[in-house]
Amino acid sequence: LARELGRAVLPRLRRQARLHVSGCAKSCALDGRAEVTLVWDAEGCKLGLDQSVSEATKTAPTTLEAARARLAGLPAQRDYERDGAAIYRRSFAIIRAEAELERFSPIEERVAVRLIHASGMVELSRDIEFSPGFAEAAVRALKAGAPILCDTKMLPAGVTRPRLPSNNEVLCFLDDPRVPELAAEQNTTRSAAALSLWREKLDGALVAVGNAPTALFRLLEILDETPVRPAAVIGVPVGFVGAAESKEALLADGRVPCMIVRGRKGGSAMAVAAINALASDKE
Amino acid sequence: LARELGRAVLPRLRRQARLHVSGCAKSCALDGRAEVTLVWDAEGCKLGLDQSVSEATKTAPTTLEAARARLAGLPAQRDYERDGAAIYRRSFAIIRAEAELERFSPIEERVAVRLIHASGMVELSRDIEFSPGFAEAAVRALKAGAPILCDTKMLPAGVTRPRLPSNNEVLCFLDDPRVPELAAEQNTTRSAAALSLWREKLDGALVAVGNAPTALFRLLEILDETPVRPAAVIGVPVGFVGAAESKEALLADGRVPCMIVRGRKGGSAMAVAAINALASDKE
Repeated sequence: LARELGRAVLPRLRRQARLHVSGCAKSCALDGRAEVTLVWDAEGCKLGLDQSVSEATKTAPTTLEAARARLAGLPAQRDYERDGAAIYRRSFAIIRAEAELERFSPIEERVAVRLIHASGMVELSRDIEFSPGFAEAAVRALKAGAPILCDTKMLPAGVTRPRLPSNNEVLCFLDDPRVPELAAEQNTTRSAAALSLWREKLDGALVAVGNAPTALFRLLEILDETPVRPAAVIGVPVGFVGAAESKEALLADGRVPCMIVRGRKGGSAMAVAAINALASDKE
Repeated sequence: LARELGRAVLPRLRRQARLHVSGCAKSCALDGRAEVTLVWDAEGCKLGLDQSVSEATKTAPTTLEAARARLAGLPAQRDYERDGAAIYRRSFAIIRAEAELERFSPIEERVAVRLIHASGMVELSRDIEFSPGFAEAAVRALKAGAPILCDTKMLPAGVTRPRLPSNNEVLCFLDDPRVPELAAEQNTTRSAAALSLWREKLDGALVAVGNAPTALFRLLEILDETPVRPAAVIGVPVGFVGAAESKEALLADGRVPCMIVRGRKGGSAMAVAAINALASDKE
């Protein structure tokens, strides 16, 4: 009977909850409180909730049906994966089974898998484009300690710092007090104007644009105007006005190694995923 | 001639660049340097780059063809929209023209439009579900000063503070030093364990889960275990393991007003977009 009740109660226990099943009132085991205590003694079956064995022993005996009904009233344990590492493993296995990844090099594949993971879209693989040598250039720059220059604050907030190989700076100047004035002077968005504050960090940096097409266009203008060259550019701005055009312009430009997501899709989560993928080969 | 050269040079000037066109060496106007200076004097047409009129006057005269060739070598102005407000207006107009939004109430439509804007996907409207009264409950809570409890740091980084009606707190406890120990104790992810630190803020709060299905499942367990109820829940975790299931469980639960994006899609950018839409009716 205890075993049958045990089977009935198990699905209702939260992980790490204590279930005490005792065949006698002596309580050979520890007599601490447990979420559920089942005692089977001379009087019959006793069910204690949040009681010790000695407390449960004093409760009235119950029938199997009554015990089962009472247990059914407990909140059911929700059945979901709680192991973060297992979630990653299963996610990446699903992505590799479903997505078309054959055309990518091993490092590119790592980036593509994380972009898909961050977006929930296996079909995204068709829209991801890498210029030759992008992934190698980005990895090399990060290992050499290059800063990561970002167009939006969500990127520094999302990058997993322990993955970075050289404790690299992850910078966004959007909130710098000089930006509103620069934007007014340059007659452009704050996102684009903030690039004026990148200048001394830009040479050899990893650039990540996850939000603003204007920031990506402005970067191309800086390449026109100065000899400064970032090591690599993650260009994944999102949206309906200029996003697709800015990404195609970057890919066609050819002056810096880059990756893009073609079309309207993109965003800060994808930019973060790309940075995290390039920063470490750990999955 | 000066006018014709002016027409030739205009497309190559960056906005706010200075173009100086002078018909005489007297320089009636200010004699400062300009990116391009055209002087037409007795000797002929003179083209100065980054010179003042008096400097340009000293350069050798040139033919129209030579001037045009020299101007063609200047970096071309890139043609893209730089006006942030215009970008928003055009984006939202495109979304409203292309997306199916008829089934939403006016406030829900506002949220849906921003989710689409943040993801670049008009087809997303089909996957967005609101429980009855969600939008009103969330707006009311924010106006009343409710905190916004977030599962990932990208959310506080992304919320546009001036939109918040009551200078609301936007909180994420993922980096709290107690979280790793809680996660080990509870045998769950850090994202889910961090909810233990929400407890005293949770009643009446706006909850936003943009990343971790485990956080959303954990929230449902807290509803099982305690009488505490958030005012509304934005449930848009992303991914391949548990995301779809956690969102369907939230929508089916019925104990708190909620919105979800069905399936694998979701993410912090969508959660931020929903918060920003609910925070203010300004577009």
